[in-house]
Amino acid sequence: MDRALTRRRLIGTGAAAGAGALIGTGPPAEAKTKHKRTAASKARSADVIVVGAGFAGLTAARAVRAAGKSVYVVEARKRVGGRVWNHELGSGVWSERGGTFVGPTQDHLLNLAKAYGVKTFDVYDPDGSNNVYYNPSGQRFEWSDTGPTGTAPDDPSILAELAVTVQQLDTMSQSVPVDAPWQAPNAAEWDGQTLETWINANTATNGFRQVVPVATRPIFGTEPRELPLLFVLFYIASSGNETNPGTFERNFDTRGGAQQQRFEGGSFVIAEKMAAELGKRLVLNAPVRKIDQSGAGVTVTTDKGVFKGKRVIVAMPPAQCARVYYDPLLPFQRDQLTQRYGMGTLAKVACVYDKPFWRDKGFNGTGLSTNGLVSATFDDSPPSGKPGIVFGFVGGDQCRKYAAMSPADRKNAVLQEFAQFWGSEALKPNDFFETFWTNEEWTRGCPVGIPSTGTLLAYGDRLRAPVNRIHWAGTETSNYWNGYMDGAVRSGERAAKEVLDEL
Amino acid sequence: MDRALTRRRLIGTGAAAGAGALIGTGPPAEAKTKHKRTAASKARSADVIVVGAGFAGLTAARAVRAAGKSVYVVEARKRVGGRVWNHELGSGVWSERGGTFVGPTQDHLLNLAKAYGVKTFDVYDPDGSNNVYYNPSGQRFEWSDTGPTGTAPDDPSILAELAVTVQQLDTMSQSVPVDAPWQAPNAAEWDGQTLETWINANTATNGFRQVVPVATRPIFGTEPRELPLLFVLFYIASSGNETNPGTFERNFDTRGGAQQQRFEGGSFVIAEKMAAELGKRLVLNAPVRKIDQSGAGVTVTTDKGVFKGKRVIVAMPPAQCARVYYDPLLPFQRDQLTQRYGMGTLAKVACVYDKPFWRDKGFNGTGLSTNGLVSATFDDSPPSGKPGIVFGFVGGDQCRKYAAMSPADRKNAVLQEFAQFWGSEALKPNDFFETFWTNEEWTRGCPVGIPSTGTLLAYGDRLRAPVNRIHWAGTETSNYWNGYMDGAVRSGERAAKEVLDEL
Repeated sequence: MDRALTRRRLIGTGAAAGAGALIGTGPPAEAKTKHKRTAASKARSADVIVVGAGFAGLTAARAVRAAGKSVYVVEARKRVGGRVWNHELGSGVWSERGGTFVGPTQDHLLNLAKAYGVKTFDVYDPDGSNNVYYNPSGQRFEWSDTGPTGTAPDDPSILAELAVTVQQLDTMSQSVPVDAPWQAPNAAEWDGQTLETWINANTATNGFRQVVPVATRPIFGTEPRELPLLFVLFYIASSGNETNPGTFERNFDTRGGAQQQRFEGGSFVIAEKMAAELGKRLVLNAPVRKIDQSGAGVTVTTDKGVFKGKRVIVAMPPAQCARVYYDPLLPFQRDQLTQRYGMGTLAKVACVYDKPFWRDKGFNGTGLSTNGLVSATFDDSPPSGKPGIVFGFVGGDQCRKYAAMSPADRKNAVLQEFAQFWGSEALKPNDFFETFWTNEEWTRGCPVGIPSTGTLLAYGDRLRAPVNRIHWAGTETSNYWNGYMDGAVRSGERAAKEVLDEL
Repeated sequence: MDRALTRRRLIGTGAAAGAGALIGTGPPAEAKTKHKRTAASKARSADVIVVGAGFAGLTAARAVRAAGKSVYVVEARKRVGGRVWNHELGSGVWSERGGTFVGPTQDHLLNLAKAYGVKTFDVYDPDGSNNVYYNPSGQRFEWSDTGPTGTAPDDPSILAELAVTVQQLDTMSQSVPVDAPWQAPNAAEWDGQTLETWINANTATNGFRQVVPVATRPIFGTEPRELPLLFVLFYIASSGNETNPGTFERNFDTRGGAQQQRFEGGSFVIAEKMAAELGKRLVLNAPVRKIDQSGAGVTVTTDKGVFKGKRVIVAMPPAQCARVYYDPLLPFQRDQLTQRYGMGTLAKVACVYDKPFWRDKGFNGTGLSTNGLVSATFDDSPPSGKPGIVFGFVGGDQCRKYAAMSPADRKNAVLQEFAQFWGSEALKPNDFFETFWTNEEWTRGCPVGIPSTGTLLAYGDRLRAPVNRIHWAGTETSNYWNGYMDGAVRSGERAAKEVLDEL
């Protein structure tokens, strides 16, 4: 490996660009040997090495540089953005394959976008435009977010129970400290049961219980049985900021919620702009294999060479952190945390049409279904409304079912479900594409890592706790908007501050 | 890395021993270069590559060789045995740091021991000898396994509830198919709740509920909140064989249970004997970094060189399997399984005395405590009774508390608890040692991997399902005696059969 690496470094990267010119031109034997030796022993050095160029890592690098310290960012993928990724449709039109929206209280993401001049626009949801909902009996409901039931479907079989349940969960969440959910007065009780258990014990109708996965599949990529109650309550508490307590509604709402706005050009543009500033300080295609802090500083070994820093910020989900070799080994509490924090199971599917035909029929593009493979959809068209794009979340058991189908069956199923929402125009898209986040090598699931029951209680305090010169970032480490882009940004800022305090 | 690897292979291992002689002696320039190139391109080949030299891997290798096929076994540790490991005390005396016991229905392990001439002996528990039990109120009970309450403590505050609860769990377990627990009629209901939830809903007294961790800490290395009910029921069903249905009692009993017997010289002797047969076909200190089946056959890259086989058997716990890089990537269902299968949290502590002084006082060395750091102890003395050895399990929350203490405090706490069981003689051991399985690099927990809620249902069918030319072994993949040495042996036999059917 050394030799191949050496060559790549000499030819392909900036750090040794001068030497690279010698390859194939200089005097054959001696000079080559000399340069090889030099390059092989020469690690690239900076004050801080950041592992991962998602929003967390990029934000951390930006903060470190802003403080006048040097940085290298190493990223396993051939692109930046992590769980944020554009699908380019040509002519400046895009669709987000991953993190898409921004909403109230997500100030850190909004501030970042503002700093880079990336503008927001409202997701299509004018007054009186209709959502669509299919309940477990297959009944159809159309309702507007500005109607009498607000953002809740006007299905009388669930309406009362939905309101009470969300209220109960919101109230419970208020006793969960976002900085340390394991310190909630009822933490042990809540971390010892699943959301399914709590729902079964606290709701009356089977019909309502079947609605719950319509929320958990898009939000967590899981079924209610996979979610510790304590984690759900923390997630709710986390969906706010220092002055506005989190609410569950903010997770699923467009108006006033986390789906209220999008970014012009797509959320990915922010990542691209941050990456551009880094220049040669960003190294792509560089999966990290080893993090060594047995000597002075930290040595990070990647497929693109060795990087040395005084500190390292690891900005990856816990389950990915488990796949790096650490020397010395991490304390078992941190290691076991990463063994118990599997990624959600989520695919995103999208259709492109000449125009957002649903709008003309009075629909806003949001469809919810208890029986469908697609649990929730959103209008994903550009501000111009040309073309019309709609995407859907396929999560949890539905994602597992969906993945087992043939590509043709999958496409057909999605089109049928979209047609059920908005009519037969949906059957003839110009383009159909799907993004299986489960299959992405450097994520292996989405949208967020989910601890198993008992894990927050046992090891939650290890999510952020630095291990000597290793600091942890990533949305899973955030107190507010954990699991969202805003949480990633917050985590990067926090980790950078930790490091800067020590430099 | 190539160059260092090449050197190690030339000097240190058998496969290229002839070439090794040239290092430092042959003609300097040309010959060295030639040999380096040869060795670097020359992977060691066999019909089957086995990853992991625990009981599963060693058994698989043995079966492959018995069928006349060639094998290489690569092992990350500098020793074989995996979760089985002797602590040698000198003069032929040993104490097991890991897997220790064998009992009725564990026929595969018993047959293996017999094949190698390793004899069993009964764990010390003569008629009328007393166990000790401390209940949550700190009350002490002494009872004999041959007394009126059998193997259950004669504490009237728990006796009835214990009997009913164990009976209920046993009955429920009978509907769980050991080959596919996710197909149990109530699988979804049971995989959506924790053991804690079920205990709270199905038992009456807080006192009894506090007894439950006394079982889960040693058996699983967890608290009841960390255990999906379906997994517990599967584990019970698994504690038997094809003709004797599993029972929960068999997990905790000495008489008639999984702690009934030990092996002369220690269970580790069986692994040593299997390893000796492998000779140079066993390569230690060879952690596997990559398994590549993108071409013909399978290429396994380790820190000790490259191995090529027609098939590979990976005999590691799921959480360790997650730490290998696969090309092509594994299906996400398999990957997510390994993200959701954290190892239990267990340490073993042991004291050595001149003699087993507790025996003279009528005790058999088994102590159970609801409040102690040590939940359960066993007499671990050699057949001669000289010296006297007793060991204890520290699991789940107790292990986490224990790990946070200073070494001196830990030792003192264990001695105090042992003295509480059997008297002040316990305070003056000749030797005290502890084994943190959580800290073992290539295990990072014990005794077994534990799925999170919903995982068996979603991904249980991926535990054993081969991925093209990769086959999976390890006790976590066993239908019977999952989590035990017998399960490991069974899994090795099963995986070898799978492979041999394809060769």
